[in-house]
Amino acid sequence: MTATDLSSVKAMAFDVFGTVVDWRGSLIADLTQWAARRGLSGDWTGLVDAWRGAYVPSMDEVRRHPEGGYLALDHLHRQSLETLIGRFGVSGLSEDDLAYMTLGWHRLRPWPDSIGGLTRLKRKYTIATLSNGNVALLNNMAKHAGLPWDLILSAELFEHYKPDPETYLGAARLLGLPPGQVMMVAAHNNDLHAAQDLGLKTAFVPRVTEYGPLQNKDFAPDGDWDVVAADFDDLAAKMGC
Amino acid sequence: MTATDLSSVKAMAFDVFGTVVDWRGSLIADLTQWAARRGLSGDWTGLVDAWRGAYVPSMDEVRRHPEGGYLALDHLHRQSLETLIGRFGVSGLSEDDLAYMTLGWHRLRPWPDSIGGLTRLKRKYTIATLSNGNVALLNNMAKHAGLPWDLILSAELFEHYKPDPETYLGAARLLGLPPGQVMMVAAHNNDLHAAQDLGLKTAFVPRVTEYGPLQNKDFAPDGDWDVVAADFDDLAAKMGC
Repeated sequence: MTATDLSSVKAMAFDVFGTVVDWRGSLIADLTQWAARRGLSGDWTGLVDAWRGAYVPSMDEVRRHPEGGYLALDHLHRQSLETLIGRFGVSGLSEDDLAYMTLGWHRLRPWPDSIGGLTRLKRKYTIATLSNGNVALLNNMAKHAGLPWDLILSAELFEHYKPDPETYLGAARLLGLPPGQVMMVAAHNNDLHAAQDLGLKTAFVPRVTEYGPLQNKDFAPDGDWDVVAADFDDLAAKMGC
Repeated sequence: MTATDLSSVKAMAFDVFGTVVDWRGSLIADLTQWAARRGLSGDWTGLVDAWRGAYVPSMDEVRRHPEGGYLALDHLHRQSLETLIGRFGVSGLSEDDLAYMTLGWHRLRPWPDSIGGLTRLKRKYTIATLSNGNVALLNNMAKHAGLPWDLILSAELFEHYKPDPETYLGAARLLGLPPGQVMMVAAHNNDLHAAQDLGLKTAFVPRVTEYGPLQNKDFAPDGDWDVVAADFDDLAAKMGC
């Protein structure tokens, strides 16, 4: 890692799923508890893993078929869920059940260090989401979890999913900053490669339990990132907060 | 005023200039103090009033000439300023001076009740800006003034200025809510008429000193608004916070 001058950084844009919130642990717990109350049985862990597995292919479909218009992530989550439920032994779901499950992505819980680190960083920097989640999802999540964002930036605003360049450059444009004054923070090396190629600063925070036993990458930085931090408290310290 | 069921309201969208912040008092004080430090003379009150006077015409130009692309409010403010400075006895401004003055709109101060009321409302509702200010302006203002927005929605996101319908309907869409679950809050009756026509709920909060001695309207509600409140504390009380 080369030493970078970080004094130009004015805003930090955060990947959310996996970087700020523990989507897998949250959804498995949420659906398991809900199913017990509803008297439903199913392989909830398997469903959650397959649901997230459908995430990248569903965004690729949007990317490959621009003539179909931009579809927000809530819509993709619902589509994937309907395809998957039969495969995991779940049946008898009502419309309300499907809506509740889809909104599970709005109820994700932060990693233990997320709120403390963000609160420190917010004193010195603008802190924004830059997520493939739609605006309503990210806002509901922030209200539910107490995430102290200054503002919510989303793929939905650009009608492009990360890692399309329109997302990173669109975020810098809306922030009124050149890309070099914006730092992308993610637990995913591919997100940072895309941001760095466009001139953004980069910070890697590993979340090695994000995918549970299925985790097969992002255990360590694989690029020349400006900051590598153990967690958000360490990130705040390394950013001078 | 007919009694309205407000229990459906989930989010409140706030006009900002005049409704949340005292643009006139802030800018006159800011520029007067800055000019004294810089050793510049000029009619700062006259300039500020004329600058705001150029606001609606400058947005009308964007509306009438969509082929020119959307121009963000920072850009319009800078254009208007360059046109006006000569008329108010100001000369010898550097590029840095013009930039500082234009960014005066990012440094506006809230009315005394704004932060307290918003903080109460935020506990129960999503609170968002819905302003003709661009995103960077609104974010910088929020950081500077301590405005506790959940999210920043701006004409810039829709590439349409209020009162174009795209702004109100775009805000509801991004919030993931039907228009009837979003309440527009403004000190300006025309903003509320446009919002109400599209199905949004409405709240009027008079700011009768907004334009100083030039104020010639919006002393009182002129529509059938769902809520009329004396200030943001009263608004919070009337919204059950």
